[in-house]
Amino acid sequence: MDTLSFLQNTPLGKSLSETQMEILAKSATEKKYRAGQFIVGDGHEIRDFYMVVKGTVKMSKSSHDGKEQTLCLLGPGQLFGMCAVFSDCLFPANAMTLEKSTLLLVPDTVLKDLAREDPTILFNMLSILSDRLKEAMLLIESLSLMEVPKRVAYFLLFSNLKNTCSEGAIAKLAISQRELSKILGTTPETISRVLKKLVEENIIRVRGRSIRIINCEALEELATG
Amino acid sequence: MDTLSFLQNTPLGKSLSETQMEILAKSATEKKYRAGQFIVGDGHEIRDFYMVVKGTVKMSKSSHDGKEQTLCLLGPGQLFGMCAVFSDCLFPANAMTLEKSTLLLVPDTVLKDLAREDPTILFNMLSILSDRLKEAMLLIESLSLMEVPKRVAYFLLFSNLKNTCSEGAIAKLAISQRELSKILGTTPETISRVLKKLVEENIIRVRGRSIRIINCEALEELATG
Repeated sequence: MDTLSFLQNTPLGKSLSETQMEILAKSATEKKYRAGQFIVGDGHEIRDFYMVVKGTVKMSKSSHDGKEQTLCLLGPGQLFGMCAVFSDCLFPANAMTLEKSTLLLVPDTVLKDLAREDPTILFNMLSILSDRLKEAMLLIESLSLMEVPKRVAYFLLFSNLKNTCSEGAIAKLAISQRELSKILGTTPETISRVLKKLVEENIIRVRGRSIRIINCEALEELATG
Repeated sequence: MDTLSFLQNTPLGKSLSETQMEILAKSATEKKYRAGQFIVGDGHEIRDFYMVVKGTVKMSKSSHDGKEQTLCLLGPGQLFGMCAVFSDCLFPANAMTLEKSTLLLVPDTVLKDLAREDPTILFNMLSILSDRLKEAMLLIESLSLMEVPKRVAYFLLFSNLKNTCSEGAIAKLAISQRELSKILGTTPETISRVLKKLVEENIIRVRGRSIRIINCEALEELATG
């Protein structure tokens, strides 16, 4: 893989000078992971930032009795580990791959050195971290204030279709209904029941992991009403 | 108030040069708010950062049917509005005062100019934002994976006593049980019932907003077991 040209198209690489991009690319180590492989655990000390190159990484919290809540799913170009590096070096969740994945590891010292020359990379990180905090706030809102059907509609419209619903649009779930239930803070059975009801009401059609939107207005009403 | 010496002792002011501190202090506008006054709403566009000088600010999300979930409470020295300024300028929640409060407003342009000279202020903000994201992750964990008694124990030990429990320690709630219920994602009646049970089990003693810890071990067992 050409690390340099990959990094140029990520939120971290935005507006960086050519020299900075080269230093960043040279300092990064590529690492490959199997599907379902553990990357770093809640409370572990880290000294690197991670960037997803290929695949999907799940960040989650677990309880002692084995329940799990997904915090976010990260795909190509997305960064994690910032929170641990800028705060107290302790990783705040469990990170594992959902599929075969490739990551770049960048030592925090490199980013700190780059920043002392030109703060652009820090502005990029602040923007990434801000977006992550906004997403966490939305998840809190969803878990605390929305019933499950509303969470499902919200997820389809805003996380999946990025707020551009149209009749016939297809929301492709990159994950199983079991993983979806861990994002939406419920059980796979409840997700299955809610999707079935939406199908019966002729709002969506489900084929495997593809969900076709039949009635945008009804879905939006459910998500925001 | 001496803005300069106040800012020196905040996480934002940490390790800033004297010149930078002076520019920051001069650019800040002080604003006073009544108890329960609205500061900025979910989705509003902002161009300033806010810092609490005196009082308490509540950040929350609300549903159409009037339910409310508190995201965090912010006291003296704490910053908000970063998320909106570094992302898309849209404030991600509702901010209001819980008591008579004084805030400092700092234009984002000033922070951006300061950062171009010396990135220290950006490192400070990354650290603040990282801590905020970690807190949000803990709240998600609490809402999704913990029963209410565990949430209460967790709140007392980690948010209030900062993980330094000792027999006889007093957790002073700066807020009413009604406000506490909005943090812990439940009803005031449930909070009242849980506290009563902890009193009956001789784990805590409650007098108004003061909660005296009688049995640390039992409380820790409840929080983490």
